Amino acid sequence: MSTSRLDVAVVGSIGLDTIETPHHRREEILGGSASFACVAASFFSRVGMVGIVGTDFPAACTDLFNHFSIDLKGLQVAEGMTFRWSGVYEANMDNRETLSTDLNVFADFLPDVPAEYRGAPFVFLANISPDLQLHVLDQIESPRFVAADTMDLWINVARDSLQSVIQRVDMLMMNESEARHYTGVHNLVQAAHQLLEDGPAYVLIKKGEHGSILFSKDEMFVLPAFPLREVTDPTGAGDSFAGGFIGALADAGEVTPETLRTALVCGNILASFGVEAFSLEKFHLLERLQIDERISAFKEMTQIP
Amino acid sequence: MSTSRLDVAVVGSIGLDTIETPHHRREEILGGSASFACVAASFFSRVGMVGIVGTDFPAACTDLFNHFSIDLKGLQVAEGMTFRWSGVYEANMDNRETLSTDLNVFADFLPDVPAEYRGAPFVFLANISPDLQLHVLDQIESPRFVAADTMDLWINVARDSLQSVIQRVDMLMMNESEARHYTGVHNLVQAAHQLLEDGPAYVLIKKGEHGSILFSKDEMFVLPAFPLREVTDPTGAGDSFAGGFIGALADAGEVTPETLRTALVCGNILASFGVEAFSLEKFHLLERLQIDERISAFKEMTQIP
Repeated sequence: MSTSRLDVAVVGSIGLDTIETPHHRREEILGGSASFACVAASFFSRVGMVGIVGTDFPAACTDLFNHFSIDLKGLQVAEGMTFRWSGVYEANMDNRETLSTDLNVFADFLPDVPAEYRGAPFVFLANISPDLQLHVLDQIESPRFVAADTMDLWINVARDSLQSVIQRVDMLMMNESEARHYTGVHNLVQAAHQLLEDGPAYVLIKKGEHGSILFSKDEMFVLPAFPLREVTDPTGAGDSFAGGFIGALADAGEVTPETLRTALVCGNILASFGVEAFSLEKFHLLERLQIDERISAFKEMTQIP
Repeated sequence: MSTSRLDVAVVGSIGLDTIETPHHRREEILGGSASFACVAASFFSRVGMVGIVGTDFPAACTDLFNHFSIDLKGLQVAEGMTFRWSGVYEANMDNRETLSTDLNVFADFLPDVPAEYRGAPFVFLANISPDLQLHVLDQIESPRFVAADTMDLWINVARDSLQSVIQRVDMLMMNESEARHYTGVHNLVQAAHQLLEDGPAYVLIKKGEHGSILFSKDEMFVLPAFPLREVTDPTGAGDSFAGGFIGALADAGEVTPETLRTALVCGNILASFGVEAFSLEKFHLLERLQIDERISAFKEMTQIP
């Protein structure tokens, strides 16, 4: 794989998660926003990862990234421990509680975007400190489309930097509660339009199992989630969604109302696969045919005569 | 209007509501499941109402029903007070608390279905005691399609009768929490399929602002809600949805996967109008053209390329 043809650059966290759901507990499994996003994107395009792990990062995890042909030139390996997160999901999996967050090598991370990534036409700034997102963005030459995700924490502790991110990206992704928290507006249509005022051409409001809504100044695209019989672990769903989206958009090559919608459906479907297993396990054996079949099924079940 | 051509018979409550939202308080406004359902259905077909009010029922409310050409031969007027309900919505309108419920004339109601309604091809058993729903159903000759709604209360106090209703209808409508409560199953796909086991060919799970999902044994139809900039009063949304649905289905005349989907979209749109004002106020000046325009807009914003 020639890195000169990198389609998507992703920066975000790579970590080891310990997760407790009502029926299972898994320790030190591969997680992090960049892990999910890169793997999901890799089904559609050539992805490079910008992030950091410690010297304890398991070789099996690196092997997994390689399995998906993810370019790892942007993945720093630093002396110390890899980022760790642990959390427990409530009985119905609608809410989760963070038990611990250990930044470890992320504490002193300064992302250095490899020369080969700097011309990447599509960029996804996955959830990570907005200062790091900005630092990455500064190193990308002239991206065609930049999407950014964030989380509640940054709204609380780095609002100004987050606002700078919002002003510089083409698409901001936020979940319902983050959009309400950031804007102080409960109604999602109003909140999204307030976010659009800050600069991005597109705001995507994610509603978890209830789907998502894409807003631009003139349009909405309302996308329900793919209904699942069983959700094993919702961790990373938003990252898989975003990764599938940016990967498919890069594959389309141009940004139009149609390619955006098609790419969002891809992200939606990747997220639906992702939550059917822990970590990236569902993706490991997933084939493009299964993705296409679920996309077809989804189109059929949302088709209005 | 000749009553011999009645398309839809609806039984349910008619009452006077006192409602407090974060910004408004309205006293003794027209409400009740049958009121919303009949008015919404009346945009698409000829509707007859089965219910009861007291001698205090305001003439203006009867005038409103007449304005929508709703057949009122099935509306009993009994000595005593009309049903009353009062509730208060929480700050974000996601939850409400019932402050009082006064059955009044509903306490001794025994619905008598007028001879002219007994051949109605489409029937909606709006939220009311399942024993009364069964009593109405017994009086309908050979309906083509019967839909029933219910509420948490009946799951608690009249589960056996509710099960009989479920066994006898073509479509059961429940909101998320009711479906979970009745089945004891959290996952909505599994809960819906368990409900299908009880007999109805269709189960509609209503998710409020997040839309709804229609289940049959072989199919799903996933329908997001129409995103609104402002919700004034969510009371009656499910009833307007059901009424718009059954009215549009009756207008189509036959029950196919296509007519069901089209009718659900109509219900969805009627509900979206209904919550933009208190009581039935939004419907008063609503014209068919506005409904058609919003349906077109909805199709556009959900269209997958």
